[in-house]
Amino acid sequence: MTADQDKSIKSLVEQRIPGKSLDAAFYTSDDIFKLDMREIFGRHWIFVAVEPEVAEPGDALVVNVGLSSVILVRDDNGDIRAFHNVCRHRGARMIPEGATMIGNIVCPYHSWTYGLDGKLKFYEHMGAEFKPGCNSLKPVALRSIGGLLFICLSDNPPTDIDDMARVMEPYLAPHNLREARIAHQADLIEEGNWKLTMENNRECYHCGPNHPELTIPLFAYGFGFSPTELDEQGRAEAQRYTDLVDASCSRWEGAGVPSREVDELTGRPTGFRTQRLPIDQSGESYTMDTRAACRIPVGAVQDKALGALSFWTQPNSWHHFMGDHIITFTALPLSANRTLVRTTWLVHKDAVEGVDYDLERLTEVWKATNQQDADLVAIAQQGAEDPAYEPGFYSPYTEGLVEKFAAWYIERLKDSLA
Amino acid sequence: MTADQDKSIKSLVEQRIPGKSLDAAFYTSDDIFKLDMREIFGRHWIFVAVEPEVAEPGDALVVNVGLSSVILVRDDNGDIRAFHNVCRHRGARMIPEGATMIGNIVCPYHSWTYGLDGKLKFYEHMGAEFKPGCNSLKPVALRSIGGLLFICLSDNPPTDIDDMARVMEPYLAPHNLREARIAHQADLIEEGNWKLTMENNRECYHCGPNHPELTIPLFAYGFGFSPTELDEQGRAEAQRYTDLVDASCSRWEGAGVPSREVDELTGRPTGFRTQRLPIDQSGESYTMDTRAACRIPVGAVQDKALGALSFWTQPNSWHHFMGDHIITFTALPLSANRTLVRTTWLVHKDAVEGVDYDLERLTEVWKATNQQDADLVAIAQQGAEDPAYEPGFYSPYTEGLVEKFAAWYIERLKDSLA
Amino acid sequence: MTADQDKSIKSLVEQRIPGKSLDAAFYTSDDIFKLDMREIFGRHWIFVAVEPEVAEPGDALVVNVGLSSVILVRDDNGDIRAFHNVCRHRGARMIPEGATMIGNIVCPYHSWTYGLDGKLKFYEHMGAEFKPGCNSLKPVALRSIGGLLFICLSDNPPTDIDDMARVMEPYLAPHNLREARIAHQADLIEEGNWKLTMENNRECYHCGPNHPELTIPLFAYGFGFSPTELDEQGRAEAQRYTDLVDASCSRWEGAGVPSREVDELTGRPTGFRTQRLPIDQSGESYTMDTRAACRIPVGAVQDKALGALSFWTQPNSWHHFMGDHIITFTALPLSANRTLVRTTWLVHKDAVEGVDYDLERLTEVWKATNQQDADLVAIAQQGAEDPAYEPGFYSPYTEGLVEKFAAWYIERLKDSLA
Repeated sequence: MTADQDKSIKSLVEQRIPGKSLDAAFYTSDDIFKLDMREIFGRHWIFVAVEPEVAEPGDALVVNVGLSSVILVRDDNGDIRAFHNVCRHRGARMIPEGATMIGNIVCPYHSWTYGLDGKLKFYEHMGAEFKPGCNSLKPVALRSIGGLLFICLSDNPPTDIDDMARVMEPYLAPHNLREARIAHQADLIEEGNWKLTMENNRECYHCGPNHPELTIPLFAYGFGFSPTELDEQGRAEAQRYTDLVDASCSRWEGAGVPSREVDELTGRPTGFRTQRLPIDQSGESYTMDTRAACRIPVGAVQDKALGALSFWTQPNSWHHFMGDHIITFTALPLSANRTLVRTTWLVHKDAVEGVDYDLERLTEVWKATNQQDADLVAIAQQGAEDPAYEPGFYSPYTEGLVEKFAAWYIERLKDSLA
Repeated sequence: MTADQDKSIKSLVEQRIPGKSLDAAFYTSDDIFKLDMREIFGRHWIFVAVEPEVAEPGDALVVNVGLSSVILVRDDNGDIRAFHNVCRHRGARMIPEGATMIGNIVCPYHSWTYGLDGKLKFYEHMGAEFKPGCNSLKPVALRSIGGLLFICLSDNPPTDIDDMARVMEPYLAPHNLREARIAHQADLIEEGNWKLTMENNRECYHCGPNHPELTIPLFAYGFGFSPTELDEQGRAEAQRYTDLVDASCSRWEGAGVPSREVDELTGRPTGFRTQRLPIDQSGESYTMDTRAACRIPVGAVQDKALGALSFWTQPNSWHHFMGDHIITFTALPLSANRTLVRTTWLVHKDAVEGVDYDLERLTEVWKATNQQDADLVAIAQQGAEDPAYEPGFYSPYTEGLVEKFAAWYIERLKDSLA
Repeated sequence: MTADQDKSIKSLVEQRIPGKSLDAAFYTSDDIFKLDMREIFGRHWIFVAVEPEVAEPGDALVVNVGLSSVILVRDDNGDIRAFHNVCRHRGARMIPEGATMIGNIVCPYHSWTYGLDGKLKFYEHMGAEFKPGCNSLKPVALRSIGGLLFICLSDNPPTDIDDMARVMEPYLAPHNLREARIAHQADLIEEGNWKLTMENNRECYHCGPNHPELTIPLFAYGFGFSPTELDEQGRAEAQRYTDLVDASCSRWEGAGVPSREVDELTGRPTGFRTQRLPIDQSGESYTMDTRAACRIPVGAVQDKALGALSFWTQPNSWHHFMGDHIITFTALPLSANRTLVRTTWLVHKDAVEGVDYDLERLTEVWKATNQQDADLVAIAQQGAEDPAYEPGFYSPYTEGLVEKFAAWYIERLKDSLA
């Protein structure tokens, strides 16, 4: 980036008005996309996978984050390791994206072979002066929080991941993600900037008009409303919802299941938020009838009406933990106007498809919802690219988490550009 | 655009040699394409549609011009309004490209709803401080000239559209475009810069070798020739053609049908030219046998041998009005090397397909001609991208209107960059 | 390119460490790609075709090199001429890529017509002041070396092509390429920078793990090895190979067939290298059983066990001349991360497919090898684009020619940027 470009981005960052959507350039500029990949995705903790994707020693998973490719592999000690998927000889990408099983990491180009500890074990023809010890695979920082795998591509990862781990482990523990099994995984490309994907995820103002399936388990008042716009009946319904949230939370916490809201979205590199919220009707699951999709509970808790523990992280993930299954989502930027959203459905490891659960029933709400969200992100991107676009006001009642996301993003850029 | 880029474009503009094709950068550079979209398509009157596309109250048409999207809609008073297709909340594109019918303009994202006057009529959750009056849709300047719809994306549209309207209304009135019906519309993407599309349209030097269908109704001498290159027979034919033009013009004007050439292509923002020219053989229409394709005249004139009134505008349109049908063309840039050409065929509103006209016969000459032109524009673009390209001389006899287009374009850039 | 970009590239060129792969930007940057096209492909001798592709007067071949398009045509005197494929009028590309037969060069746009000497012979409507003599087609420098056609797009082509011609004509003469016939030609797009295509071609360190077909005719020790890594048996095999090379070379040279290594890869604009090496088993050809694929020898030499004369040029070609057939390869950059590799198989002009040779058998080794190489180039490109890439050491024993290619490239850029 030239000095000119740098100055122009700094000035956009400084000019951002709290409470309004970002300047168009943050959604459309290739230069800002490169900055995002370097400063946001290159220096923060990124959710990329779950432990069950590398369940056994030798299980490997290659995840691409922008132009970076990372190998996650479980070694013979049962530890998960992460390395850059770049051979130290001529730089070839060694393993293609996706899951595989390996004994060593072998580059197909000239057969350089690395152990699962990243050390160069085999090579030929390099001469006496070549130092294999200086040619280990480059490690990537990795943390598992309750079985959710976060990586950081920087050599100096933010240390506040420790806070997030300390807070979240007790929330996630009852759901037993580490022992779960992947029932399904789906990739969807949204035709929009990753920040529009995230903003869309951070509000349910759009749910009523757009998500006929998701609004079955979700409560209408669950994600904010303007109290002054309610009539008497609306006020009564809203109050009933608030009472239900309080009562449910007390009941779950009393049963040793952490549920209270924690909001650490801004003011720190590793922004996150969690809260367990009731589900409508039966209270069990994000399904078309709100009943559990899987007969075997995924975690250790017997209460089927466990609502959904949601866990949101910045910059790129969200997760829902219910009594019968778990859904995780990661948003991975592809370009200034394209984002991959990967959704993973997990059930108890002993659950058998067709016996304990029907895959269609398990996945139909979020498959529909994801596609609807992708359509919304696409029209938001088209609008941001229109010269007539200008930042508009977020709703103070229903888009508070969108504002927190935007504020966090601007904070992080300020910090990086300082 | 950086100061360096700006300076380099200014210098290309200054160096342009009259009488020669433009420097390659004007056809190939992404920076100049952005400049064209901002200064030419962003500040001039652009032909985009015809009134019959929004014939009734509630009829809406979304037209995209570069990254801008514009809603044209006929309101309940019968007036046509134009708005930017960008919600004032989060900026979403509200209506997809093409035709639809609407009562209000509703954003699908969060259901913000605007009246056909652009005013925000419905929204939720925005709080007491939100001012709906400051969140109307942004209007787009719109003019109908004889039923041809021109928009200007600038807040300060060129006022010389009034001159064009005053001159052209009497020419267009006899053809009754406002009451016509769309028989067919076809989009074609030309693999070339929009200026190559326009240059190609502004000469018929290429017609002989390339347009076997179009040269049936067109006269060989109709678009310029070098008088010194003619033999005795050629001179006689050319003279006969000149005499025919004069006689036809006198006859048509005598019958109250304006026909004389008006050329206002340069020296002004809103460049245009018109002239009614005879058609070969029967003199009636641009068809394979020159006979009318539609039994019902489109306008009020009884003379079937009305030739074709052509109307050319800068930067982006051309139109042919015949006794039996009307054809309009708009060129809409997609990128430095791609241009959409949209062709619309119109007939009398009471004409019935299969009874009064055969669609194939109505459209075959220009469908073939458009594809031939697209092929020529593609090879012109390939040539302009070749490092060996250099500006060549335009023919002083057959490419005078190409020169006028290029001169107008350079004038407009000079004005913008001043 | 701005002054800033220029400075940043100069600094990358200066910092290059001999013995290591290039900085990532040389494989990935669009700016450096443009520089490569201007300074490397725009100012050096590029192999593009063989004489049999324009065997007879009127035979024409259009080859695209980057954005440049060049017409090669054999005129009525039997001489091959090369011209830029850009009309001098409006710049149109006159003839599409590929082979054709022509009497004149006619631009389809306005029928301007040039003779096979490039002179403008026919045009209309240009007026008295137009000078046809100033509007000849622009010539392109052309040299045939043993029937291999090299062009240079610069007006000042490197004169050291004379050295290459003087050295190589005697080596190529016995193979009689000028009289050969094209049996097959195949284009393959490699998803990598052209320099990765070239680097891959300049070493066989990757052959063992990747080329099961090619390693049948090739000797395992034929392209370098680390002597200290061999056990006793390995040392004996390597020695037998060295003795075979010496003995074969003496035998061939004794029979008047030039075979000794010449290496002029660095220190000059027109880098090249040649050597005739034995083939394993029968010693005859690059086939699955090492036996000749064609019954009729392509050249004048009776010895069937002629091994393969290889001829490598910089920046973009390699060739193998065997007793029974000839294979030529040219690498033509398409973008920073895409390269076209065109392979041509030639046999004796009297050889009849299905009688004297089987096409599948003739082409199978290199078709398989090319695809394998394309796969390797793709993973090398992916790695170079990864932020974790850093230049790695080339093997001093097996990647010496890769180092020479990289050194030549850096030399040439230094020379251009000086």
